[in-house]
Amino acid sequence: MLIRDASPEDWAAIWSFMRPIVAAGETFSWDRDITEERAKAIWLDNPYGRAFAALDDDGSVMGTAEIHRNQGGPGAHVANAGFMVDPAYSGRGVGRALCEHALRQARADGYRSMQFNAVVETNVRAVKLWQSLGFDILATVPEAFHHPTLGYVGLHVMFKHL
Amino acid sequence: MLIRDASPEDWAAIWSFMRPIVAAGETFSWDRDITEERAKAIWLDNPYGRAFAALDDDGSVMGTAEIHRNQGGPGAHVANAGFMVDPAYSGRGVGRALCEHALRQARADGYRSMQFNAVVETNVRAVKLWQSLGFDILATVPEAFHHPTLGYVGLHVMFKHL
Repeated sequence: MLIRDASPEDWAAIWSFMRPIVAAGETFSWDRDITEERAKAIWLDNPYGRAFAALDDDGSVMGTAEIHRNQGGPGAHVANAGFMVDPAYSGRGVGRALCEHALRQARADGYRSMQFNAVVETNVRAVKLWQSLGFDILATVPEAFHHPTLGYVGLHVMFKHL
Repeated sequence: MLIRDASPEDWAAIWSFMRPIVAAGETFSWDRDITEERAKAIWLDNPYGRAFAALDDDGSVMGTAEIHRNQGGPGAHVANAGFMVDPAYSGRGVGRALCEHALRQARADGYRSMQFNAVVETNVRAVKLWQSLGFDILATVPEAFHHPTLGYVGLHVMFKHL
């Protein structure tokens, strides 16, 4: 698996799995009908962020990640990150590899820690993955996420020093 | 004291105290040299938010607040809010009145809770005020704020059901 900076040429592939993941409304706190333009602005074109793509041996985009500052000014030394893996490539360690890459890059970029603001508590596989990579659950914001089938569930705030 | 929706005509007065508050870098996770254009976009013109102004008897703007959704889509039922009071009017209960107003309006707008993501732990007066209004500290993100004189201090995540 190759992980490198995402390029505008990767966007079509990224959007092909990002759109259904967001539309499902189970893991991301984005508008489920977010426009492609808005999603691209958040993911690829954040002036304070950078995005990555994980590629299969044949060059197919299997997943993507992005890191950006979690706050501005006096809070800009804490990174935030997002991850999406094409379900067609699930179970291959793509999410783990992307997170390890994001942590390395965040360190290299001078961030002192990484914080996730909104990890859906029912997204158990992701929670376990982040924990296995050293993230702690600092708090769970009660009923902060409206899951399409499970109703109101909590959002974990997760954190790791770099 | 009158609290009402902020109007574009209030902006000059708001910016007159917002700018030094943000430049001081002690309480807000914004770039300390944020442009007026960007600050106005965040505070007054958030398409998912609304802003208020607290007026003295002579119509002077003593403080301001804004509420907006803390996340999109499945997280859009949780409000976030920001507050700034002109130091010239400190000690008059302006912050408390603005927060009470923001809580009432958030309830009326259908939000189910209010979350603050980044309350600087050394901003003790604000922390005590939010606690007196029913907010709990869910977590303190360690060293997430670089205070100009105190160094790295924590950011409280605070929460209240509506």
